[in-house]
Amino acid sequence: MTDDELLAAALGGAPGAAGEAGAAAAGGESHDGERRRRGGRAAHERSRLPPQRPWNQPRIPYRPVEVLSEDEIESIHVASLRVLSEIGMDFLDEGARNVLREAGADVRPDSQRVRFDPAMVEERIRTAPSTFTLHGPNPAHDIVMGGDWTAFGTVGSAPNVADLDRGRRVGNREDYQNLVRLFHMLNSVHFFAGYAVEPIDIHASVRHLYAIYDVVTLADKPFHAYSLGRQRNLDALEMARIVRGVDEATLDREPSIFTVINSSSPLRLDTPMLHGILEYSARNQVICMTPFTLAGAMAPVTLAGALAEQNAEALAGMTLTQVVRPGAPVIYGGFTSNVDMQSGAPAFGTPEYMRTAMIGGQLARRYNVPYRSSNVSASNAVDAQAAYESVFSLWGAIMGGVNMLMHGSGWMEGGLHASYEKVILDAELLGMVEAFLDPVVVDEDTLAFEAMQEVGPGGHFFGAQHTQARYRTAFHKPMLSDWRNYEAWQEAGSPEAPIRANRIWKEMLAAYEPPPMDPARREELDAFVARRVEEGGVPTDY
Amino acid sequence: MTDDELLAAALGGAPGAAGEAGAAAAGGESHDGERRRRGGRAAHERSRLPPQRPWNQPRIPYRPVEVLSEDEIESIHVASLRVLSEIGMDFLDEGARNVLREAGADVRPDSQRVRFDPAMVEERIRTAPSTFTLHGPNPAHDIVMGGDWTAFGTVGSAPNVADLDRGRRVGNREDYQNLVRLFHMLNSVHFFAGYAVEPIDIHASVRHLYAIYDVVTLADKPFHAYSLGRQRNLDALEMARIVRGVDEATLDREPSIFTVINSSSPLRLDTPMLHGILEYSARNQVICMTPFTLAGAMAPVTLAGALAEQNAEALAGMTLTQVVRPGAPVIYGGFTSNVDMQSGAPAFGTPEYMRTAMIGGQLARRYNVPYRSSNVSASNAVDAQAAYESVFSLWGAIMGGVNMLMHGSGWMEGGLHASYEKVILDAELLGMVEAFLDPVVVDEDTLAFEAMQEVGPGGHFFGAQHTQARYRTAFHKPMLSDWRNYEAWQEAGSPEAPIRANRIWKEMLAAYEPPPMDPARREELDAFVARRVEEGGVPTDY
Repeated sequence: MTDDELLAAALGGAPGAAGEAGAAAAGGESHDGERRRRGGRAAHERSRLPPQRPWNQPRIPYRPVEVLSEDEIESIHVASLRVLSEIGMDFLDEGARNVLREAGADVRPDSQRVRFDPAMVEERIRTAPSTFTLHGPNPAHDIVMGGDWTAFGTVGSAPNVADLDRGRRVGNREDYQNLVRLFHMLNSVHFFAGYAVEPIDIHASVRHLYAIYDVVTLADKPFHAYSLGRQRNLDALEMARIVRGVDEATLDREPSIFTVINSSSPLRLDTPMLHGILEYSARNQVICMTPFTLAGAMAPVTLAGALAEQNAEALAGMTLTQVVRPGAPVIYGGFTSNVDMQSGAPAFGTPEYMRTAMIGGQLARRYNVPYRSSNVSASNAVDAQAAYESVFSLWGAIMGGVNMLMHGSGWMEGGLHASYEKVILDAELLGMVEAFLDPVVVDEDTLAFEAMQEVGPGGHFFGAQHTQARYRTAFHKPMLSDWRNYEAWQEAGSPEAPIRANRIWKEMLAAYEPPPMDPARREELDAFVARRVEEGGVPTDY
Repeated sequence: MTDDELLAAALGGAPGAAGEAGAAAAGGESHDGERRRRGGRAAHERSRLPPQRPWNQPRIPYRPVEVLSEDEIESIHVASLRVLSEIGMDFLDEGARNVLREAGADVRPDSQRVRFDPAMVEERIRTAPSTFTLHGPNPAHDIVMGGDWTAFGTVGSAPNVADLDRGRRVGNREDYQNLVRLFHMLNSVHFFAGYAVEPIDIHASVRHLYAIYDVVTLADKPFHAYSLGRQRNLDALEMARIVRGVDEATLDREPSIFTVINSSSPLRLDTPMLHGILEYSARNQVICMTPFTLAGAMAPVTLAGALAEQNAEALAGMTLTQVVRPGAPVIYGGFTSNVDMQSGAPAFGTPEYMRTAMIGGQLARRYNVPYRSSNVSASNAVDAQAAYESVFSLWGAIMGGVNMLMHGSGWMEGGLHASYEKVILDAELLGMVEAFLDPVVVDEDTLAFEAMQEVGPGGHFFGAQHTQARYRTAFHKPMLSDWRNYEAWQEAGSPEAPIRANRIWKEMLAAYEPPPMDPARREELDAFVARRVEEGGVPTDY
């Protein structure tokens, strides 16, 4: 498609059309009659969709695991301050260096190096808020960051996409839109963590406009904008403002966009990332400051050393946010994992990852800011490895007190592809985690003495009144798990989990309906995107 | 095979011969020349085996998760005492009832019901030891039960067995022996939790003799004996005594066998189980008292109610052990899960399971006794579901402070089959859990300031001296996980986890060597089994 065709698709009937495309690819029908009937599908049709918990932002009621003692956490803190003071960190943008120099950092002429006095860091980061709300297009889907709140995001930034039918292929807008639709429908996914897959068939100059257009028209959950230069940041923010229907002053009070700032570890922050902090912190938007510290590659091979480096880089970024605007929302991001020392391949969901995820939480709480971790896997297939690496990651993240879980659903192959089947697998895992976070009610009613008396030794509880009154909602209902007995499962063709996931995402896409949107806002949004596309978006040299 | 042939196989060259059978089934060669060469295989051959951590009994350094408050735990305790006092529990064996009546329980003529005064229960269970050692045939493999120690067991009691090549089939001795061999070789498996698969081709009258013979000659780790009547209990104990080379008095001081006592929930203990307690507690052997309380079926549909029932049954069994012999080792077993309320199918590794696993740990610590939980899955295939249910189970068990993890390796389909590939998958999971329990060392050396200074901003750590000195042992090495990049993995035929597990167990079986055994003990053992087989074993009516 040309950009003009893309624009037409985006502003015209894109959701419906692309929805059919997805359903067709999924083996559904795509002629117009079918499409119209779909609009009229009612509860009995939708009831074929897999069971889901209602949308809800969960809280973690359990005390986070403390892998390190307070003294050990303090040692990492002190070591990272020493790194920032004695080694320093390269800030590749002169504007950012100037801001820091004026704030008291040690910045010398003709050098990108910035050194921080420990006292400056400690004082500056103190103004970072412990809790704030990230607002989405639909206020019912706003999420709280901080405290015992947690929220689960989509896969972000995969260059490739895969499903069982079509295999692995380069990212494109059709798949991007279909994944946005799925995430809109999946209640255990609370926010968009970047482009689930990179829509490379949209020219880079206007990609952000179309991709954000899709995320705010096909879905209504809080979202991420990539920090790839000031103009893109401003475009994303304006689109967030339009879809929320608020004015600039409200936007300034209410964080409505977040951006992940990755340091180029070790100890470097590049220009687009620094512009992201300068731009968004000034506008009170959310910075998720995440060093990418793979132990043995971009960080020391020892976990303590990798964490000291992670912490130094996180503190440097956090300091800049608070220098730009005291009180600006910032999240402490942990992404320390290890590599295979034979091949250099990054590994995820490892025992090293679990512990650094938990220690990252300890450090974030040390600074009283929200904590970001991730659901990760290095697996190439949606197999047992994909599942165990993901659940081990979740174990590390959840028991580490994660507030913002990036890549919660769909992340495969160390981030190199997004998978439709993994989206469903992860939605199952996230739903189970949500249920795990539900309180166990202990009271006279639930202790069920009378039921035990009624049933007595050797009886069974199926028919007991206590059971009958509760069985429909007593237990978490799985979306993907197959609990049929072996014979019934075999008769059904012995479907393994990815086959079942494949069926589920197709059924969901076939039933997709876009969220409602205020017509005036839609008009304003369409006009904004049309104008910015006409202006050529953001000049690129590629 | 006839029993005589089985005996000959067991007492003759069984390990080698059956080892070849396994290797042959696994696609290896089985002619004699090959077999002889295999004996001479040295380190360079064995190095093709997957990497493993050395055998080590892990400890859990993390504070267990407290799902319930102390008050709520107390409510469950009080409710379960009320159940035991007002409803009571059926003890199907008159001898057990007599013992309890003499100890002060309320037992009435012509009734199987036993009611316990709360004070009696509280007083009796106080003598149960908090920690003890379970001795194995090889003292290097003794395991400590209690405190922060944890130990991982094999799958136990599966009626069927499966692998990718031969599918699912009824249990038999050849598969039983092969699984014993694998568990002997897997360092993250610390004890035998019953017959991995039921060897039904051995007649029930002598099955225990052959099955225990296999476990103590093909392996040397602590083991389980089924409580299926007094004579079988005595036979197993005598075999444990012989292979340990100790006298009766030592056996009496040093627990050398354990047995799982399942109540027939709700609120019933049958005769063989009661004989197990009477026999083994009297001999200071280990009782693992485990109610099988599926919420909604054999227990109330509410988790608190199911746990109150679990606790009542566990306390009743524990009380009997201490009445029989104050100080006898007893483990608090938790196995509360839920069922699919539509089909009645049991579910495992669910959010309900995770929380009851953790609460079970809280209750065991309330009574200051070791805690047993399990690694479970309802999946029919070694797919993502098998992996996530297992890791969720492990999450519940490990963060619940489990001391004895039953079914740690190989349990599938809600216990209805043992899987060779799941054995390997689980060994990977258990190895990862062990590594997760390793301390993260924080000191000047690991904080790596000098390494960061040497590498500096923008550099990389691969070549740093700090990395070179540590990279070989820095990270846990996986056995099963595939971290190759997508292209290399695809070129290798896109092998998913079960395919890789299939290759691993075959390589391991091909390299299997039996543990050494003192010839005098072997002779005594052979003679004992031969005599008991000649005597007809234990009369059965089936």
